[in-house]
Amino acid sequence: MWTYEPPLPQMNFMLRQVLDAPATWAACPALADLDSATVQEVLKQAGRFAAEVLAPTNAPGDLQGCTLKDGAVTTPTGFREAYAQFVQGGWPALACAPEAGGQCLSQALNAALYEMLVSANHAWTMYPGLLHGAYEVLLHHGVPHLKETYLGKMTSGEWLATMCLTEAQAGSDLGLVRTKAQPVDGASPANGVPVRVSGNKIFISGGDHDLTPNIVHLVLCRLPDAPAGTKGLSLALVPKVLPDGTRNAVHCDGIEKKMGIKGSATCQMRFDQAQGWLIGEPNRGLAAMFLMMNAARLHVAMQGLAHLEAATQNAWRYAAERVQMRAAQRPEGAAPAAADPIAWHPAMRRTLWTLRAQAEGARLLALHTALRLDTAEQHPDPAERQQAGDDVALLTPVLKAFFTHLGHHGADEALGVFGGYGFVHDYGIEQSVRDSRIAMIYEGTNQIQAVDLLQRKVLDDGGTRLNRLLDRLAEEAVRCDAAGQGAAATALREQLRAWRQATQALLDGRTADPGWALRVADDYLHACGHALLAWAWATLLRASAGQDAPTARLFTQAAQVGLDWVLPQAGVHWQRVHTREAALPWLD
Amino acid sequence: MWTYEPPLPQMNFMLRQVLDAPATWAACPALADLDSATVQEVLKQAGRFAAEVLAPTNAPGDLQGCTLKDGAVTTPTGFREAYAQFVQGGWPALACAPEAGGQCLSQALNAALYEMLVSANHAWTMYPGLLHGAYEVLLHHGVPHLKETYLGKMTSGEWLATMCLTEAQAGSDLGLVRTKAQPVDGASPANGVPVRVSGNKIFISGGDHDLTPNIVHLVLCRLPDAPAGTKGLSLALVPKVLPDGTRNAVHCDGIEKKMGIKGSATCQMRFDQAQGWLIGEPNRGLAAMFLMMNAARLHVAMQGLAHLEAATQNAWRYAAERVQMRAAQRPEGAAPAAADPIAWHPAMRRTLWTLRAQAEGARLLALHTALRLDTAEQHPDPAERQQAGDDVALLTPVLKAFFTHLGHHGADEALGVFGGYGFVHDYGIEQSVRDSRIAMIYEGTNQIQAVDLLQRKVLDDGGTRLNRLLDRLAEEAVRCDAAGQGAAATALREQLRAWRQATQALLDGRTADPGWALRVADDYLHACGHALLAWAWATLLRASAGQDAPTARLFTQAAQVGLDWVLPQAGVHWQRVHTREAALPWLD
Repeated sequence: MWTYEPPLPQMNFMLRQVLDAPATWAACPALADLDSATVQEVLKQAGRFAAEVLAPTNAPGDLQGCTLKDGAVTTPTGFREAYAQFVQGGWPALACAPEAGGQCLSQALNAALYEMLVSANHAWTMYPGLLHGAYEVLLHHGVPHLKETYLGKMTSGEWLATMCLTEAQAGSDLGLVRTKAQPVDGASPANGVPVRVSGNKIFISGGDHDLTPNIVHLVLCRLPDAPAGTKGLSLALVPKVLPDGTRNAVHCDGIEKKMGIKGSATCQMRFDQAQGWLIGEPNRGLAAMFLMMNAARLHVAMQGLAHLEAATQNAWRYAAERVQMRAAQRPEGAAPAAADPIAWHPAMRRTLWTLRAQAEGARLLALHTALRLDTAEQHPDPAERQQAGDDVALLTPVLKAFFTHLGHHGADEALGVFGGYGFVHDYGIEQSVRDSRIAMIYEGTNQIQAVDLLQRKVLDDGGTRLNRLLDRLAEEAVRCDAAGQGAAATALREQLRAWRQATQALLDGRTADPGWALRVADDYLHACGHALLAWAWATLLRASAGQDAPTARLFTQAAQVGLDWVLPQAGVHWQRVHTREAALPWLD
Repeated sequence: MWTYEPPLPQMNFMLRQVLDAPATWAACPALADLDSATVQEVLKQAGRFAAEVLAPTNAPGDLQGCTLKDGAVTTPTGFREAYAQFVQGGWPALACAPEAGGQCLSQALNAALYEMLVSANHAWTMYPGLLHGAYEVLLHHGVPHLKETYLGKMTSGEWLATMCLTEAQAGSDLGLVRTKAQPVDGASPANGVPVRVSGNKIFISGGDHDLTPNIVHLVLCRLPDAPAGTKGLSLALVPKVLPDGTRNAVHCDGIEKKMGIKGSATCQMRFDQAQGWLIGEPNRGLAAMFLMMNAARLHVAMQGLAHLEAATQNAWRYAAERVQMRAAQRPEGAAPAAADPIAWHPAMRRTLWTLRAQAEGARLLALHTALRLDTAEQHPDPAERQQAGDDVALLTPVLKAFFTHLGHHGADEALGVFGGYGFVHDYGIEQSVRDSRIAMIYEGTNQIQAVDLLQRKVLDDGGTRLNRLLDRLAEEAVRCDAAGQGAAATALREQLRAWRQATQALLDGRTADPGWALRVADDYLHACGHALLAWAWATLLRASAGQDAPTARLFTQAAQVGLDWVLPQAGVHWQRVHTREAALPWLD
């Protein structure tokens, strides 16, 4: 009963008509060859893979889950075959550098690909999901010898990768990591410092599986006599199978019984004097890992959007089919009937349009951010790269936390559309609720994102980078005015004004009350998320109002609903940011 | 890792010091004997049963689920034994009438009992959960012969009962029910009109199980030549085992694979010329059933509170134990440490106190409403009964929808406190999220509750009953002023003003725009829920501020957090109620 249709019309319309992606790409030599036909074709093939190959494995994979036997994980039926097709199609290399065997096809296309994969099967996508981050770390921090051995296999997807960070006592606080790395005497460090890695890691996605013959673990660890805390963390590459073909001392001791993404093996890993090689400088492992985590955070943001999109589609379809009670208001010319589609009932329309408005707004923000990432990575002018990079750094925590919130809560709202059927596995939507929850937690919990945004990205430079971003967003209000969308311009300006005001208040008051920002960081982030949606809806309205094409009409209607019905929620978040003298007792 | 501690201190303090329950009971002859010692003892024993007998079966029951074999359902290990103890303890009869073998011990105690049962094991509580409603229907609508056979067995809990309403095509819209009842020729209707019932029902909680030797089904059905729609529905009592000991033609054809409450068998039932007897008048079945549903709706509200309470407890406990990162602010005198309890981190404190504020506010509202139900049922003065009944009718849909919303979303927030561990079954909180979702759907979806509240309870009598309720709630503002709680008085008055204003606007505008109320009914209900919480927090503050007892201090702090941090959310709901000229397109 659960279905998935790739939102290709929206993606294509946004990239071309709304965001003018070709202009961004034309300014970047590495992307200048990307023409509309290629973009459309890549998206079409990605959508086909997601809908036809992956989506059918989603519900069965949830029921079957993974099994661990004799230390080896078996993934659900069909996962191996789907992964083989994924590799064969060259999808892992989509956004990788040509010198590493990649296709360098724009982060925007990669984001769109990733959205569709997760919509179709979040659990499956966990396996290749960390590949790109691991590739980035190795590309930028690996010595040539390691790159030669591993980079090509990772770009092609022939070998998969993991991020081994968490330990039982070290989750959000990686400074508490205890896993040890002991340098090997007499080895030649020119080929990467060889180490023996010992320790236990938990919550390792794809720590073991049967999709690829080798798995490349990137392990956060501690050299002897390293300083305590995060400044004593190093990063080691530890393969499951060593270059000489022997099995490394890397063991999967257990897999978690989880709420969702049951087809993804979440492993307890034990490294027992395992052979590995340091990546990057000793004690600078966290910096290298952050490169991986930033890429991963944008991917996690796409997971939020992916769940929101899939849930929205299924709710719309079900509400159009399910007939219950006569609607108080009916479309003109509707034939009399004993009962009407529930989609006609006003409260349902509120729910369905709210979901659609959030999904399209989030998608525009995601593609916009991915295009900024293209500029940050590929633009010939360092100043342009810097500014785009600043935007991405600011937007990443907002998108990670806000989209995953929207995705999970949107799936939960969509479940309600199905009534009692929503609670039953056959209709698929309850799986969306369960699968989507993890995205609010991993790659830095949403509370961690909020603190990262407010402290590190906004307040620490006195708001400089933020103000540049807001100036740029404000240009859309001018465009809206020029296009006769005065109400949208006003709504956007009001949000930007509230954003600047809240930021200034925090800048002014943080010395006198250092805890203030921490108390209200979640509200600040959610307010920013809504303000960014206001920008997205204004942009969609301006770019599509008055056009007759179905996608343009959908955007116009969704954006208007967003501004009218969803945006008011921003007010309470801004209000709470200004809450200072309020009760927040210690816990007894 | 999941634990449950009955909130006895809060319940006792609320009943005695805050709500002065003994005064309510003293005015009702049937309840006048209830003394404080009895109340404390009943609550203590109920809490012991919940925590010691039921709670240990909760997580295992979720993993094991129910099985159907050869048409018979087996419940998870331990459910039978727990139920036997429940019956032995006399718990099913707690609020039943003495003439039916009940103890008539106040609806407030029954509500408290029910909260604790659901906190300890929601799935298990589904089995006895419908008993009281079925008892009410039979008590008020059954002919003496049926009462003789069934009422005593139900009061004692020896036999359990079901509500067979839903069919595949008839969920929220019961007018579409097709199950047939054929009167039996030549039988004697004085003992209840005998009928043969045929049809298929779905989503029948406890449709079959192994807890009791007989199950009493109350089946919504249609007599031959009955009018279409809800005015042609009759109600039949159809036992699993007939009075002569033979098995009736009632079959369980399947059980659902669900998101949660997996220990509760949700059955597909087939009635195949099953023998039954009409209850109540022909074609008046829905009216009789509504008696059952109203009782059930208050019970479902308690389920929301129960999940909120259990999730809040577990989140507080985990946050006090789990150590991650140094807190930016630390309690005075705290010893230096590499990392602090996450409960000290400001964002966590927001989350934890928000949950506690909602739980205590909801509990006070629940007990208050249950005491109004005592008055409605037992007061000697018909005018008092009428007014209390009006209050209960108004409050029931708010509590059902708002509390179940708070329960599910509160459990979801609490999951976040656990970080990655929250997603893993061992910690229990992900089960709370899954189990709590159904309460927003059954016994009338929360959207249905919102329409019931606004259309039937508020607008249809021009706001008369509502204004009486609001006048009564406003008295608390006077008490707050007198007690030096001026800020709480102001917050409460502001909510009541917004409530009256929104109601008046809808009364004035509904003729010109009949769809308006339906579009904003959900926001109206959530705004009312927040306004009622404001009343609860003001009441708690006034009754406990300045006292040194731990419970009083908890109430003072929780109420203050509620007013400062949670109540602002009311504003956006009131604002949306006034939204008229906003986009809400038809779906294409």
